[in-house]
Amino acid sequence: MLKKLGPKPYLFPMPVLLIATYDENKRVDVMTAAWGGVYGEEKLAVDLDPHHKTFANIKLNKAFTISIADIPHLKEADYLGIYSANRYPDKFDRSGLVAAPSEIVSAPVLTEFPITFECELEEIVEEEKDAHVIGRIRNTLADEKLFDESGKIDPTRIQAFVFDTFQNGYYAIGEKVGNAFCDGNEIAKKE
Amino acid sequence: MLKKLGPKPYLFPMPVLLIATYDENKRVDVMTAAWGGVYGEEKLAVDLDPHHKTFANIKLNKAFTISIADIPHLKEADYLGIYSANRYPDKFDRSGLVAAPSEIVSAPVLTEFPITFECELEEIVEEEKDAHVIGRIRNTLADEKLFDESGKIDPTRIQAFVFDTFQNGYYAIGEKVGNAFCDGNEIAKKE
Repeated sequence: MLKKLGPKPYLFPMPVLLIATYDENKRVDVMTAAWGGVYGEEKLAVDLDPHHKTFANIKLNKAFTISIADIPHLKEADYLGIYSANRYPDKFDRSGLVAAPSEIVSAPVLTEFPITFECELEEIVEEEKDAHVIGRIRNTLADEKLFDESGKIDPTRIQAFVFDTFQNGYYAIGEKVGNAFCDGNEIAKKE
Repeated sequence: MLKKLGPKPYLFPMPVLLIATYDENKRVDVMTAAWGGVYGEEKLAVDLDPHHKTFANIKLNKAFTISIADIPHLKEADYLGIYSANRYPDKFDRSGLVAAPSEIVSAPVLTEFPITFECELEEIVEEEKDAHVIGRIRNTLADEKLFDESGKIDPTRIQAFVFDTFQNGYYAIGEKVGNAFCDGNEIAKKE
């Protein structure tokens, strides 16, 4: 039986994304977001509360980076989602994380994270309660340790985790359960 | 060391989403997509190739549903991502899956899946190669079996899985590794 819940954004799994920007004093700010996704071959979209410092920073610099949070930095990632840079301007310094300037866009790169997208602001769609920030990926950075012998990224090496919007849990990526563009062929052959 | 890969949409974890629509003959069509995310409190965005039958169907009906794929239907979900309804109009029938009309929007609901978003088409942003389809969630359906004793959805009961864009693998959701809006407090107290 399906229960009707009204309109709820209960997508799952949700990624845990770190959005890094510079403020007006070139100070690093980072916030955590789950409401985002791929918005085309070279674009990402994230949904932000326009009151966030991050939003002002993105407007200012027309750039940001998005890093994929990993389990070794879970506490830091969570911290960056709890505290506001509007109230705590030294928020990032207190995280103990490391940032270096992007070589491509006017935004910091969190160098300890496995994958980072260096994005130029493409468009902001502002609505009453939220703002959709669309970034054009100018470059993707990946830690060399992620690559396996075949030269491809091994997703288990990312050590990414999932945010659960229902009970506010974080979950690891589990065991392999199938092969995309392959397992479905069995179904097609039927009949 | 971070390697520069050029612009790549290497977001991870990626969800596995089933987009269900009716065609011009009210025949059910379903395709699988990974490029999507929450686009606000009551909106979802998915990125589609405009050549997909699904795209024509969404334009026709101004509606679609999105279901979260689960491990018990992994093969079916994969199949729906491999085969095109443009070439195989009986694609959905061959999947063996069950659909019922949504009570709210002009689209089918895949009743065997754990969570389904019944969406009205809000906007299509067409670009050269892809189309961003933004849906307004009119209602969210969740299987009653997902709810735990506290009345909340237990994310492990969804049995969702993750798509890996690097090597085309599917991965289960693993063990719990933390608590959001909680674990980060340790960091904040430092100094």
